[in-house]
Amino acid sequence: MLNNFFNPKSIAVIGASRTPGKIGYDILKNIIQYGYKGAVYPVNPEAQEILGLKVYPSTLDVPGEIGLAVVAVPPQKVSEVIGQCGDRGIDAAVIITAGFRESGSEGTKLENELVKRAKESGVRIIGPNCLGVIDTHSRVNASFAAGMPNKGSIGFFSQSGALCIAVLDRALAEDIGFSKFISMGNKADISDTDIMLALAEDDNTKVILGYIEGVNDGRRFMEVASQISKKKPLIILKSGITSSGAKAASSHTGALAGREAAFDAAFKQSGVIRAHSVGELFNYALAFANQPLPEGPNVAIITNSGGPGIIAADACERSDLQLVPLHKETVDELRTFLPPVASFYNPVDILGDATAERYEKALYTVVQDEKVNGVIVLLTPTAVVNVEGTAKAIANIANLIDRPILTSFMGRKSVESSSKILMKYNVPNYSYPEEAVSSLNAMCRYQVWINRPDKTYARLDDLKEKVLHIFEKVREEKRERLSEPEVYEVLKTYGFLQPKSLWARTSEEAVAAAKRIGYPVVMKIISPQIVHKSDIGGIKINLNSKKEVGDAFFDITTRVKDIMPTATIYGVMIQEMILGGKEVIIGITKDAQFGHMIMFGLGGIYVEVLKDTSFRIVPLSHEDAREMIRETKTFPILRGVRGETEADIAAIKKSLLILSQMALDFPQIIEAEINPLLVKKRGEGVVAIDARFTIGGD
Amino acid sequence: MLNNFFNPKSIAVIGASRTPGKIGYDILKNIIQYGYKGAVYPVNPEAQEILGLKVYPSTLDVPGEIGLAVVAVPPQKVSEVIGQCGDRGIDAAVIITAGFRESGSEGTKLENELVKRAKESGVRIIGPNCLGVIDTHSRVNASFAAGMPNKGSIGFFSQSGALCIAVLDRALAEDIGFSKFISMGNKADISDTDIMLALAEDDNTKVILGYIEGVNDGRRFMEVASQISKKKPLIILKSGITSSGAKAASSHTGALAGREAAFDAAFKQSGVIRAHSVGELFNYALAFANQPLPEGPNVAIITNSGGPGIIAADACERSDLQLVPLHKETVDELRTFLPPVASFYNPVDILGDATAERYEKALYTVVQDEKVNGVIVLLTPTAVVNVEGTAKAIANIANLIDRPILTSFMGRKSVESSSKILMKYNVPNYSYPEEAVSSLNAMCRYQVWINRPDKTYARLDDLKEKVLHIFEKVREEKRERLSEPEVYEVLKTYGFLQPKSLWARTSEEAVAAAKRIGYPVVMKIISPQIVHKSDIGGIKINLNSKKEVGDAFFDITTRVKDIMPTATIYGVMIQEMILGGKEVIIGITKDAQFGHMIMFGLGGIYVEVLKDTSFRIVPLSHEDAREMIRETKTFPILRGVRGETEADIAAIKKSLLILSQMALDFPQIIEAEINPLLVKKRGEGVVAIDARFTIGGD
Repeated sequence: MLNNFFNPKSIAVIGASRTPGKIGYDILKNIIQYGYKGAVYPVNPEAQEILGLKVYPSTLDVPGEIGLAVVAVPPQKVSEVIGQCGDRGIDAAVIITAGFRESGSEGTKLENELVKRAKESGVRIIGPNCLGVIDTHSRVNASFAAGMPNKGSIGFFSQSGALCIAVLDRALAEDIGFSKFISMGNKADISDTDIMLALAEDDNTKVILGYIEGVNDGRRFMEVASQISKKKPLIILKSGITSSGAKAASSHTGALAGREAAFDAAFKQSGVIRAHSVGELFNYALAFANQPLPEGPNVAIITNSGGPGIIAADACERSDLQLVPLHKETVDELRTFLPPVASFYNPVDILGDATAERYEKALYTVVQDEKVNGVIVLLTPTAVVNVEGTAKAIANIANLIDRPILTSFMGRKSVESSSKILMKYNVPNYSYPEEAVSSLNAMCRYQVWINRPDKTYARLDDLKEKVLHIFEKVREEKRERLSEPEVYEVLKTYGFLQPKSLWARTSEEAVAAAKRIGYPVVMKIISPQIVHKSDIGGIKINLNSKKEVGDAFFDITTRVKDIMPTATIYGVMIQEMILGGKEVIIGITKDAQFGHMIMFGLGGIYVEVLKDTSFRIVPLSHEDAREMIRETKTFPILRGVRGETEADIAAIKKSLLILSQMALDFPQIIEAEINPLLVKKRGEGVVAIDARFTIGGD
Repeated sequence: MLNNFFNPKSIAVIGASRTPGKIGYDILKNIIQYGYKGAVYPVNPEAQEILGLKVYPSTLDVPGEIGLAVVAVPPQKVSEVIGQCGDRGIDAAVIITAGFRESGSEGTKLENELVKRAKESGVRIIGPNCLGVIDTHSRVNASFAAGMPNKGSIGFFSQSGALCIAVLDRALAEDIGFSKFISMGNKADISDTDIMLALAEDDNTKVILGYIEGVNDGRRFMEVASQISKKKPLIILKSGITSSGAKAASSHTGALAGREAAFDAAFKQSGVIRAHSVGELFNYALAFANQPLPEGPNVAIITNSGGPGIIAADACERSDLQLVPLHKETVDELRTFLPPVASFYNPVDILGDATAERYEKALYTVVQDEKVNGVIVLLTPTAVVNVEGTAKAIANIANLIDRPILTSFMGRKSVESSSKILMKYNVPNYSYPEEAVSSLNAMCRYQVWINRPDKTYARLDDLKEKVLHIFEKVREEKRERLSEPEVYEVLKTYGFLQPKSLWARTSEEAVAAAKRIGYPVVMKIISPQIVHKSDIGGIKINLNSKKEVGDAFFDITTRVKDIMPTATIYGVMIQEMILGGKEVIIGITKDAQFGHMIMFGLGGIYVEVLKDTSFRIVPLSHEDAREMIRETKTFPILRGVRGETEADIAAIKKSLLILSQMALDFPQIIEAEINPLLVKKRGEGVVAIDARFTIGGD
C-alpha cells in the first residue's frame, strides 16, 4: 500500500532549488545524500543543474517514469503541479509546501482546490504543510529533515512536523532506529488510517508510533486500529482538545462525556496503547521495538544498589506488574555465588561491588526461573563496575532468551556509551527505573489485549420499525425532545420495564390514579420545557395517602408556576414507587468524531460529584459492556459490599447493549439517558424510572 | 551547624590506602584533586607516604588540629578509631565503611557499639555505609565519588549512596551545579533532619533536595520541615513501603490509612514538595534552583510549532497553571513583527521559520504583559532557527526579569549545546514540554504554600482528667477496647452529641426502653467480641412499634448466637433513631513513624468502596482540618448538590479538632473511630451514632 511513497523507482523534486538552506535544496540533497538508488529528477524552470543533476523545466519534461513527486513550489502553484503529476501518471505526491488550511481562509480555499485537483488527477497526497517522508530501508529521505535515522523497526507518523524533528533529533543522538518517518501535515488526502494500514503491512515495521491531535473519521480510525492492534503494537500520543462535549449539554451524559471520553473509549476499544507524554511515547516505542512481550505480569528486578531497587519496586506496585517471589532453586543458585549480605529475593540486590560477571551470573540465574516473565536490570555506575562490560553481558543473555529484559543504567556521564551498546543489541535502556517499569507494564497490558478472544456482539430483535413513527413525528413537529408518553413507548418497545404510570390533569385525577396504581406513589410534573424536574421541585416521592397525593399535586403545580411561569404544564404523572434497588445512569451521547457513545455510571448525586462514569463507542460488544460496568470505581457497590446482595449486573449489561442498538437504529439521537435506571437484586432485572431523548437533524 | 563536615580547617583520612581503586585511596585523591585548601592527614599504620603526603600511623600521631575525620577502616575497627577521634577533640566524622546494620545482626551490634562510643567521645557521625560528603564551595570532596559537581545552589542529601552516584553522574554530564552532596548511609547518628537544618542555614544552598526511604523521628521531621519550607524549597523523593498501616487493622480507619497516608499527610502539613520519580526530583530542583517563583498561576507559552504548543497547553490544563489570555496591547505589539499567520494568542506560535531574533522579540513582548506570571518557551530545532542564538537571547531576557522562564528545546543532537548555555545562565531546559509545565506548576504550588498565613491551633478545654479513669480502668483490666458505656462517656465528655440510648437485657426491657426513648428506634447488639455489628446482622433500624422491637430483639440475639456462638452478649442498646443528615466517618489511627493521624471521609459504603479519605497528623491546625474535609472528592456532597442543603461542615471541622486533642490527651489510643458521625444541616451540628476505641500499652 502507498508503495510509491516509500519505495519509488524514481523521484521528481518539483521546486528543487539551487540555494542551500532553501527547502527545495535540502530535500534534493537529502534524497541524494542518504543513498537513494533510483533516478532523481529535479524540476525547476529556472535552473540547469543542481547538485550535479540535470534539472527539468517542468514535470512534463522529465524523460523517465516517475514514482514519487515531492512538491515544494509556492502554494498557489501546487494545484497546477499536481495536475501535471496526474498527466504524467504519478500517483504519489508529498506536498511540503505550507500556506494551506493552517494559514487561514485563503489557504483553506487553496487546499480544497488542491484536493479536488488531486482526486481528478488520480494523485494521492501526503501533506501539504509537512516535513516529508523517510524510509530507512529503501533509503528514501524525501524530507527537509536535518538527518536520517538508523534503520530500525519503528514506523512513526505525526500530525506535527515539529514532533518529527524533535523525535528525529533525539533518535540521531541515541542511535535509535526507525523504519519509516511520515510527517502528515494537514492530512488533506492521506489520513492517519491510510498510513497506519501501510505501516501494518510493512515488513520492516514492528511497532507503529503516532502523534495525533484529532482524526478525520473516528469510526474508520477505530476499525483500522482494531484490526492492526492485534498484529502490531500501535502506540499513540493524542494531544489537543476535542471540540465535542464542550458544547452546552442538556443531559448529564453530555456533560459527563467531557473532552477526552471519546478518544479514551476509542483507544480502549481498539487496543491502541496510549502514551501520555512525549517521553512515554519514546519509552514505549523502545521497549516494543526491541524486546519480546512478557507472557505475564511477573517481573524480577536485579540491582547493584538498594535505593533504585526500592524505587523500581514501588513503581511495580503502582502498575499491573508483580514482583514475583523467586523459586527456591533460583534463590539457592543465587546463594552459591552472591555475597552473603546480598538480597536473594526480589528485587535481587547484588550489591555495590558487583562486577559485570556478577551481573551476568545473576541475570542468567534469574531468567532460568520460569515464573519470571520479564526482568528489569538496574545499574548505578559505581567505581568497581565495568559498565560497558555489564551492558554486553546483559545484551548477550537478552539475545538468547524470549522474555523481555529492560535496563535502567542510571546517571549519564558514565553510562552513555553502554546505553548505546545496549541499544545496539536491542536492549532498551532508560534513565530512571520508573521508566523501565512503566514500559514493561505497557507491554504486559498489550499482551493481555492480544490474548483476548475476539469481541462478540449481541443480536437483538429488529425493533426499529416499531417506533420509527415516533421519531418521525418528533422531527415533523420540529421538536427536539420526545414527550413523556413517547419516551415510554420507545423504552417499552425496546424491552425496558417501567413503573406503572398514569397521567393526571387535576388533583382528583391524581388521587384516582394513585388508587389504581397502589400506594406508595411518585408524582412528577409533565411539561415539555422542564428537563430536570427534580431541580425545581417537580418530583415528589413516597406519597402514601389520598391527602398526600392531593397536597403534592397542589405543591408541585404551584411551585412550577412560580419558578417557570412560562412553562406549559400538561399535568402530572402518577407512578408506582419501586422500592429497593440501586440507581444507575445509562445514556447515549454523540461525539463529533466518533459518533454515538454509551455512558454508564452509578446514579444519584454520586455520578455528578464523583464523575465516576465510563464510556464506549457504539456498537458495544458484550465485552465492552462488561468492562465499562466494571471499570467504574463504584462497581463494588453493585457487586454488594458488607453483606449486601448483588445487583443485577447482567441486566445492566443488557440495557447498555440495547442502548447501543437504539443508537444504531436512530442516528438522529443526540442525547438520551435513563436516569435513574433502578437495578434490582441479581436475577430481578432493572426498571427505567425516568428517561429523556433529544434528537437532531440527522 | 555541622560546620566541620562541610568546611573543616583540616581533614584526616583514617584508613588511607596506597592502592588506586581502593576506597581509602580514592577518598584521599578526591580531597587533594578537587582543590581542598586545608591540611590533609592520611592515617595508615603501614604506609609512609601516599599521593605525596606524609602518612601517620594513627590519628593520635597527627600533629595539627583535625577538623574532620573520614573513616574507611574495616568495620571492626571503626569504634576504636572513633574513640581516638574523641581523644583528639575531633567532633565530626564521616564513616564510609560498610558492614554495619545493613549487613545483618552482627553488623547491627557493631553499629550500636559505634553509636555508643561516638556519643561518649563527643563525635558526630555521618554514615556509616555511605559515599561521603561533598561541598563544592569549600572544595571538600570527602567521598569516593567519581567526580566533583560544579558549584551551584542545590543541596542534596540521600539515604541511598547509589542515588548520589546516579545524580552526580548526570550532573557531571549536564553541568548542573550543587552546593553540597551528602550521602547519609545508615543514619546511625546524624539524621535527615540534622542535615536539612544544616542546609537551611547554608547560604550557598538555595534548594534542599532529598531522597529518603523512611525517617527516624516523624515528629521531628515535620517540625524541621515546616520551619525550613517557609524559607527554602524542600523537595523530597520518598520511596519504600512504610511498616505501619500494613498491620491487620481492626477498624476502617486503620485499613484506609494504607502505606503512604502518613508520609502524604506529613509532607502536605509541612510544605515539603514531593517528587514522585527520580526524573521529577531533578526537574524540580533545576527549576527552583535557577528561576524565581511565579507570583501566580498565569503562564504564557511561546513556541515555534503547533504540536508541542498543544502538548504544553494540555499539560497546563491538567495542572494548577492557567494559560492566561494576553493583554490586547501585548497582542497588538506581537502583530507588529510576527507573520500574519502566527498565533497571537496563548500559546503564541511564532512559526517554524522563527529565528533567534523573533524568539527574542516575542519573549520580550510577552514578559511586558504584567498578567503573565511565568513563561515557557518551546523550541523545535528546525533548519532555520539558530538554536544557540535563541538560547542566549532567552537567557538574556530571563536574567533581566524577576519572573520564571523555563524552556523545552526538544530533541537532543541539535539542542545539547544550547541546553548547556541555558543552564549556564540559570534557565532550566527540559527534554519535553510536559516536564517544563510540571516543574513550573510545582513552583506555583510552593508559592501558594509560602504565602499561606501561619497555622492556627484550637484551644480546647482540658477534659483529659475527667475521663482518665476510664482509660486507666481499661488498661488495668487488660482490655484492648473501651466498652459501649465507656465510649459513650468519653464522647460525651469531649462534647459529642449522641443519640439517646438505653441498655436492655430482655425483650421486655427493650420494649420499655423504646417507649421511653420514643419511636422510631435503632437496636444494636452489645458484645465485647463484636466490633462490626452490622456485618453479622447485629443492628436493626427504624423500629416503629412494640412488636417490631420485640421481634428485632429475638432476631438479633438468635442470629448473633448462631454466627458467633462464643460471643458474650450483654444485651442490646436501644437508641433514638436520628433522621436525616449525612454520614461521615472520622477517626484516629497511629503510624509507626509519625504517631497519631486523624482521618476523615464520607461515610457509608462509599468510604469503603471509593477509599475517598484524607489524613492529617496530630495536632491538627484549623487549616489542616479545613483542608482535609475539602480535599476529599465527595466534599461537594457535604456542601450540597442539586439544591440540597449544606451539611454542618463547621461541626465536622470541630469534631476533627476534638479528635486531635483526644489523641494528644491519650497517647495509648491505637485506633478510634466515630462511624457514622451524622452531620445535620448547617448550624445544627453532628451526632456520633456509633464509635469504637482501641488502646495499647503506651
